[in-house]
Amino acid sequence: MRLSEGVEWGLHCAVLLAVLPPDTAIVTGRLAEYHGVPVAYLAKHLQAMSRAGILAAGPGRGGGYRLARPPTDISVLDVVEALDGEDPAFRCLEIRRRGPAAVPAREYRTMCGIHRVMVEADDAWRARLGRTSIADLAAGVARDASPRMIEKFGAWLQEVMP
Amino acid sequence: MRLSEGVEWGLHCAVLLAVLPPDTAIVTGRLAEYHGVPVAYLAKHLQAMSRAGILAAGPGRGGGYRLARPPTDISVLDVVEALDGEDPAFRCLEIRRRGPAAVPAREYRTMCGIHRVMVEADDAWRARLGRTSIADLAAGVARDASPRMIEKFGAWLQEVMP
Repeated sequence: MRLSEGVEWGLHCAVLLAVLPPDTAIVTGRLAEYHGVPVAYLAKHLQAMSRAGILAAGPGRGGGYRLARPPTDISVLDVVEALDGEDPAFRCLEIRRRGPAAVPAREYRTMCGIHRVMVEADDAWRARLGRTSIADLAAGVARDASPRMIEKFGAWLQEVMP
Repeated sequence: MRLSEGVEWGLHCAVLLAVLPPDTAIVTGRLAEYHGVPVAYLAKHLQAMSRAGILAAGPGRGGGYRLARPPTDISVLDVVEALDGEDPAFRCLEIRRRGPAAVPAREYRTMCGIHRVMVEADDAWRARLGRTSIADLAAGVARDASPRMIEKFGAWLQEVMP
């Protein structure tokens, strides 16, 4: 069971956009360069985040992406679900209803206990991801950055900001 | 992100073995028949559960499988990890260390915040799966079974028990 690497990319892009001045848009090529990831593949993920209402297109043609809403209103879960889908990790195929001891469907009056545990584990996973916002992550990055990191980030920003 | 369907099969097999008299072994073909799943593919999963110390071979050649320890000592997590591995769902590739604002490794003094949230979500998922044992699941099945289910199960058992 593995999340796609696009989830890491999408989260880092959201955090980067969150530390820029509000409504700053960055083009896909620059976001790819900043994170050292392939631009064509990143573009697909950014489009998915845009469809999910997390990113919005910047002004004009080729205007890049900005956050579509305040980073306090975007959770890690929002990004994960935009990029990985909302399906639970466990799909119950109701195999208890097969085989020689199977009975008519109406006699299974409760959800299969295995399925129930899996649903609760999935809920716990999503709850944890839902408790951290992109703003929380951005605050952490700012707090932990070394002076040289801040300097290099500033130089990059000068270069890319319109 | 999806668990393999083998996880559902393996859990149901463990629950079935847990409701039988202690040390009862059932051959793979019967376990496959009971759950309506392909025998060759199920055999692979039962072997993995055996390597993980959840199942043990019954006595003699072709003696089938029994639980290797009491079902109170086997958690849902044990079965999931035997069949799906112990790797976390999120693999951090440290993409924060790439690109134009990267700094030497020693300057990243804390774990990436994205990675940390993912680890905590994974821990929450595993904690929930770890809290339910195969004995708990077996008790639930016994509690919820309809009279006809118990009757059909008994008939099957009479046929397969040595």
